[in-house]
Amino acid sequence: MLRELNLQTVESLPDDFDPTTVINDPLPPPVADTDADCSVVNNGGKLVNGKEQVREIVLGRNVHTSCLEVTEPDDDDEVTGEREAQMASVLARYRKSLLERTKHHLGYPYNLDFDYGALSQLQHFSINNLGDPFIESNYGVHSRQFEVGVLDWFARLWELEKNEYWGYITNCGTEGNLHGILVGREVFPDGILYASCESHYSVFKAARMYRMDCEKVNTLISGEIDCEDFRAKLSLHKDKPAIINVNIGTTVKGAVDDLDLVIKTLEETGFTHDRFYIHCDGALFGLMMPFVKLAPKVSFKKPIGSVSVSGHKFVGCPMPCGVQITRLEHINALSRNVEYLASRDATIMGSRNGHAPLFLWYTLNRKGYRGFQKEVQKCLRNAHYLRGRLTSAGIGAMLNELSSTVVFERPQDEEFTRKWQLACQGNIAHVVVMPNITIDKLDDFVDELIKKRAVWYENGKLKSPCVANDIGEANCLCVLHK
Amino acid sequence: MLRELNLQTVESLPDDFDPTTVINDPLPPPVADTDADCSVVNNGGKLVNGKEQVREIVLGRNVHTSCLEVTEPDDDDEVTGEREAQMASVLARYRKSLLERTKHHLGYPYNLDFDYGALSQLQHFSINNLGDPFIESNYGVHSRQFEVGVLDWFARLWELEKNEYWGYITNCGTEGNLHGILVGREVFPDGILYASCESHYSVFKAARMYRMDCEKVNTLISGEIDCEDFRAKLSLHKDKPAIINVNIGTTVKGAVDDLDLVIKTLEETGFTHDRFYIHCDGALFGLMMPFVKLAPKVSFKKPIGSVSVSGHKFVGCPMPCGVQITRLEHINALSRNVEYLASRDATIMGSRNGHAPLFLWYTLNRKGYRGFQKEVQKCLRNAHYLRGRLTSAGIGAMLNELSSTVVFERPQDEEFTRKWQLACQGNIAHVVVMPNITIDKLDDFVDELIKKRAVWYENGKLKSPCVANDIGEANCLCVLHK
Repeated sequence: MLRELNLQTVESLPDDFDPTTVINDPLPPPVADTDADCSVVNNGGKLVNGKEQVREIVLGRNVHTSCLEVTEPDDDDEVTGEREAQMASVLARYRKSLLERTKHHLGYPYNLDFDYGALSQLQHFSINNLGDPFIESNYGVHSRQFEVGVLDWFARLWELEKNEYWGYITNCGTEGNLHGILVGREVFPDGILYASCESHYSVFKAARMYRMDCEKVNTLISGEIDCEDFRAKLSLHKDKPAIINVNIGTTVKGAVDDLDLVIKTLEETGFTHDRFYIHCDGALFGLMMPFVKLAPKVSFKKPIGSVSVSGHKFVGCPMPCGVQITRLEHINALSRNVEYLASRDATIMGSRNGHAPLFLWYTLNRKGYRGFQKEVQKCLRNAHYLRGRLTSAGIGAMLNELSSTVVFERPQDEEFTRKWQLACQGNIAHVVVMPNITIDKLDDFVDELIKKRAVWYENGKLKSPCVANDIGEANCLCVLHK
Repeated sequence: MLRELNLQTVESLPDDFDPTTVINDPLPPPVADTDADCSVVNNGGKLVNGKEQVREIVLGRNVHTSCLEVTEPDDDDEVTGEREAQMASVLARYRKSLLERTKHHLGYPYNLDFDYGALSQLQHFSINNLGDPFIESNYGVHSRQFEVGVLDWFARLWELEKNEYWGYITNCGTEGNLHGILVGREVFPDGILYASCESHYSVFKAARMYRMDCEKVNTLISGEIDCEDFRAKLSLHKDKPAIINVNIGTTVKGAVDDLDLVIKTLEETGFTHDRFYIHCDGALFGLMMPFVKLAPKVSFKKPIGSVSVSGHKFVGCPMPCGVQITRLEHINALSRNVEYLASRDATIMGSRNGHAPLFLWYTLNRKGYRGFQKEVQKCLRNAHYLRGRLTSAGIGAMLNELSSTVVFERPQDEEFTRKWQLACQGNIAHVVVMPNITIDKLDDFVDELIKKRAVWYENGKLKSPCVANDIGEANCLCVLHK
């Protein structure tokens, strides 16, 4: 395997360069593959007669269920091109599997329908929006001009003046939450974080990371924050400022917290506007709610501090990304207080993906506010259609009024769940109707589900599970509740 | 501007769907462009007679120096394709500017020479490695099999057995530092963070975010951590565990902290191995040092806790990314202690870019350990060549032995600095010689610098600045020190 370094292509040696500085054999010794335990870590978790067996998620293991090893090239490969051919074949097979997986995807709120062919010419560049979108660095290969255009569009959507907002394009919804909650904590260093127990797990991750006290607030059966419980918990800590995470679409049930009621509860409990900070986690529906009439409007005309939304969800994007918008005054406060931030930037990540702004800019320009509105309407209709088909087939299902997330009984068969890539939690599964989910696809899905259920529940030994605790008696169609 | 929604393409309405749920006019009112202050925020900061005028970086402003507005499409555009043409023209101009900017780039440690044409077929997919690389989610459009292959390769490079490491592909070097320091804090909740003052700013950002006590340690003129000062600071806090950030390549001077001396200092000060956690920030040279003979070896055979490296630097990648490797036992500890993490993942970001692993996997397979070694050798040679040319021309310059970062006097002319995209700090600028920086490019740069200097220092009014304080008297070639 070892061979002499081939140096003829390298420029001549400067006089003071020590050629022994580079080690002779760069290959680290291979490590023993002691990884005998190749069982699947996440074994699914079947429903047996309505009871979930423990879904084993073992953290802190690195079982290599699937791994495409990186192998060291050798001379022969270089000559014959065998290696290139082999890699091309791996990629072709991978592409095929992605096509298939994309076709059967229903459970995650990702719009998989996009065409960024016009942007493929830019993949050749290392585009990096280092630090603050509004402070240029000397690195010239950036896309700040597109990023700021996108930020302006979102600031307008959420009704904040151009000269009163600050924001940036993030790597995902989690980064938006991490940023929003951090800004809240910097504004109120001794503030207590309140979030409903159905908030995204990144909210509680933030509390732990930032060493903040956190109160989990109960939810209604819909998944919305229970403002009575919120009021009770606020009353316990009247002496401390409040930092509140408001869900504009919870992860599992797609429930939209009532922003207006949250604010009213704060006010009635004696929290003046200078003693609370509201971060709106709009990862899921932050871009949909502005187009829905009855939805509590997410607007900076209300006393909120920040809003975040994901870019790879409703918009659709090859990689995760998001938008975070906050009030300029908060970032000013941050920059005054925090020496290390002032010197560079107020983002979480320093280096930032410069392609994401291009994807967003492209789609926003093509669709516009009106285009998104049409898609929101289509998603809401299709979600109603799905709920209707499920209940007609005797399958209990819930669809919140302002949501395109349809919640129903968890399928008995893990293979079926994986085929359709349903996100599951406990007894329930959900489909999030995104713009790429057509009526045809929903029909295929429901038809297959009905057929499967006929098998699962054939001999009466298994009964379809009761989901009254999850989605309410009114929505449950089990033996007891139908 | 307003028009009725065009609904004929939308599926028929379910009976229980309320058509009034969608608002009539989706366009938010335009916000006034009160942004009169369009001056450049970062105005550069000229050197006048060796003294830097304050380089104004104003955080908390959102001055729109450059912005490509997103505009709402209207009917005519849709018919004529005028809009598509206009967008294509914006993108074509942008591509041209990227080509030009890529050509003249010297200052940031990004290898801009890559060809991922074989992967462009995958840009059409929304690839997301949700959460933990080793715990599959139900979302099928992922690239975990590639990610794990890449992680294995790095674990081998840093000498950690396959079944003893945990890691993931991050969004950038900052995320690696945020993760490494968080793991350190979770292992030692009352630990004190030590980092040299020339550490990347994300290290101090982490301390602030995580509410950790932090001791800044002095550096030598080379930029390396001063272990005498480290010893003194450790002695002040013998009662608390130590969490140490070790720089495998500082941002400005490319200095490599002496890992072995850091460990020795800890041991001599009475810190046993169970009372410290070392995170190696290898963002810059983490992938270069393993191939340099004299470098302190970064290896998990030594008592270190984690290593991170950037993927868009030495490897080269269209977007920022990085690799984080830590010991499995630490993640086990995390998952035992942290309920919210156990249920999902131990990464910082929840959704993760699934394309980055593909880029890394592709390059690692093509180049292999030997290919990287050749490139390291080339970079070290070319950096020596640059240092030699600068000093021959009477320009003081410094190049650390284990580094490809050449530090020299800051050019007087901001336009020149921006053209070559030099990163500057105070009196000094640097070039980081990456694999795409050829001798020809370096010659062009030095030739132009020499010509420019002849103008700047022509009439003797201005003198070339003294940089002895920055890079040492021995390296300075100012009037006083030459």
